Amino acid sequence: MITLAVDCMGGDHGPRVTLAACRQFLGNHPDARLLLVGLADSLHDFSHDRATIVPATEVVTMDDPVEVALRRKKDSSMRVAIQQVKDGTAAAAVSAGNTGALMAIARYLLKTLDGIDRPAIATQLPNNEGRATTVLDLGANVDCSAEHLLQFAVMGSALVSALRDGGEPTVGLLNIGEEIIKGSEVIKKAGELLRSAAEAGDLNFYGNVEGNDIFKGTVDIVVCDGFVGNVALKASEGVAAMVIGGLKNEFSRNIFTKAAAIIAYPVLKALMTRMDYRRYNGAALLGLRGLVFKSHGSADAMAFEQALNRAYDAARNNLLDRVRTRIAHAAPLLAPADAQPRPAAATTH
Amino acid sequence: MITLAVDCMGGDHGPRVTLAACRQFLGNHPDARLLLVGLADSLHDFSHDRATIVPATEVVTMDDPVEVALRRKKDSSMRVAIQQVKDGTAAAAVSAGNTGALMAIARYLLKTLDGIDRPAIATQLPNNEGRATTVLDLGANVDCSAEHLLQFAVMGSALVSALRDGGEPTVGLLNIGEEIIKGSEVIKKAGELLRSAAEAGDLNFYGNVEGNDIFKGTVDIVVCDGFVGNVALKASEGVAAMVIGGLKNEFSRNIFTKAAAIIAYPVLKALMTRMDYRRYNGAALLGLRGLVFKSHGSADAMAFEQALNRAYDAARNNLLDRVRTRIAHAAPLLAPADAQPRPAAATTH
Repeated sequence: MITLAVDCMGGDHGPRVTLAACRQFLGNHPDARLLLVGLADSLHDFSHDRATIVPATEVVTMDDPVEVALRRKKDSSMRVAIQQVKDGTAAAAVSAGNTGALMAIARYLLKTLDGIDRPAIATQLPNNEGRATTVLDLGANVDCSAEHLLQFAVMGSALVSALRDGGEPTVGLLNIGEEIIKGSEVIKKAGELLRSAAEAGDLNFYGNVEGNDIFKGTVDIVVCDGFVGNVALKASEGVAAMVIGGLKNEFSRNIFTKAAAIIAYPVLKALMTRMDYRRYNGAALLGLRGLVFKSHGSADAMAFEQALNRAYDAARNNLLDRVRTRIAHAAPLLAPADAQPRPAAATTH
Repeated sequence: MITLAVDCMGGDHGPRVTLAACRQFLGNHPDARLLLVGLADSLHDFSHDRATIVPATEVVTMDDPVEVALRRKKDSSMRVAIQQVKDGTAAAAVSAGNTGALMAIARYLLKTLDGIDRPAIATQLPNNEGRATTVLDLGANVDCSAEHLLQFAVMGSALVSALRDGGEPTVGLLNIGEEIIKGSEVIKKAGELLRSAAEAGDLNFYGNVEGNDIFKGTVDIVVCDGFVGNVALKASEGVAAMVIGGLKNEFSRNIFTKAAAIIAYPVLKALMTRMDYRRYNGAALLGLRGLVFKSHGSADAMAFEQALNRAYDAARNNLLDRVRTRIAHAAPLLAPADAQPRPAAATTH
């Protein structure tokens, strides 16, 4: 039996979406239990023999400053959900709420793993190979040292090997050129660290990759600082939206294009499905002493269910132990990079 | 009469593409003259009453290190083309060659304008509004100070007002959230500088924007450091390629989808044309005492002609004077940010 704690209040739509996703998820996972955390009034209608309602009296809003979420709302659904993981009553927590708040609370309650001084946000993006590319960090750290980037590479490798079977995943360092001499001093140093880690057998380092390699599927994991990762993610969401939107516009232009749309529909549908960002929803907060997954704030029920699936798979495949083991193995290279890590600063919703 | 110097040897295809584009360009611009720079053997076939061949004995290759291009190949077509601008025989130079080399040579020969300590690469990307968003820097500077970002904003505003008529272009600061408190220390400080510049009437500052805003068309100009800009550009090229490629795959799957493709073709064609990156080819190297434009290395004749058009428009609209005037006006805010600017480090081809 695997138990997940769900922050039912988070996200742009709250319980309307999260509860629908939970019901769907329970239907598809007979060995799963859910702890539904939120305002009692919002959840009391929901009943399922494998769901328990855990009341919370407060809700972290999308624009609550981190300090407010962390210090003033001590009984928020987000915090209570993460507390379940700390108490061991849940194997993982899932929230579609404010990213900065989620990272700060998760970090405050769960603490980071030995050898990790900054947690990272890792998500999956669709690629040309029909597989997914895992990218981290996506906004937890606005600027990183070379050591942080190495820590991300090690944690990302653990995540990918936990979520899929077979083969040591390949890691690429996001840069502005493939050549070793390219990039800032931090990036060059990170390249050296990653090469040493590869030689030590801690990870499968491919080398530098560029922005387009994320979608080419050149490597399984792309490592970058949170600022760059966040911009790359949102820029690519922007292009996808522009192309899909353009497609809709062109097809709805007149009676003829509309006719063409009807005939082309099955084909376009197949494409949309393949490109659908919702299928890849569910970012992992890595480097903590517990599993926390972040859903896109605008997620619909289908997308939120994907985040639940991801948390379920990670828990079932002992992601936490895998990360611990890898970090322990890479310990000699993972010297803490700074004394005072920065808290989460980015929005990924 | 406007004269452009063309590095005919640059790019993945060299004269085959550049000369075809030049012929097309001359046909469309009766008041333009071209100085065709390159190896005599490669150019001798080309003849046009408004084209003059300027021989060069060397060629900078795509993987020549900057030092080699700068110090060892003193008679390269790239360098000779830029020399024409320095000598005043050409109003602008255009090359599809190695970006790092082009920036280094342009900087060495032309020098930067007073008040600018780092030139920037500015390019246009298609947006939802059917207009273009100008993004800079795209790879000339791997990491920037707040002052550099302000310089980019001022130069970008001059570029956009030179290339289009009417209205003071809006400037957005690329960040990981819209809120003022978001981002690194450099970004926050840049935000303050940009606000002061707006109050002083030096530019029209919108505020922070995120990666997707580039394609939403939220602002006319998006300012970021060269590392972030280069990653965002390539990531978005990657997504566009993935979606377009996916579309082709889905339509060529079987006889039925192929039939659908024939019917949907005009619609898809319209979309492709709107999204076509080639239409936006031609990046400006800003901040130098002369106009230099960079074409995508893989440009075909149509795309290279766009770069020529852009250089022509910039020259005709006195981009250089506009940049000078704006910089002079913003001088009080444009304190040099560092003594030793870094050379170009990114590939944009």
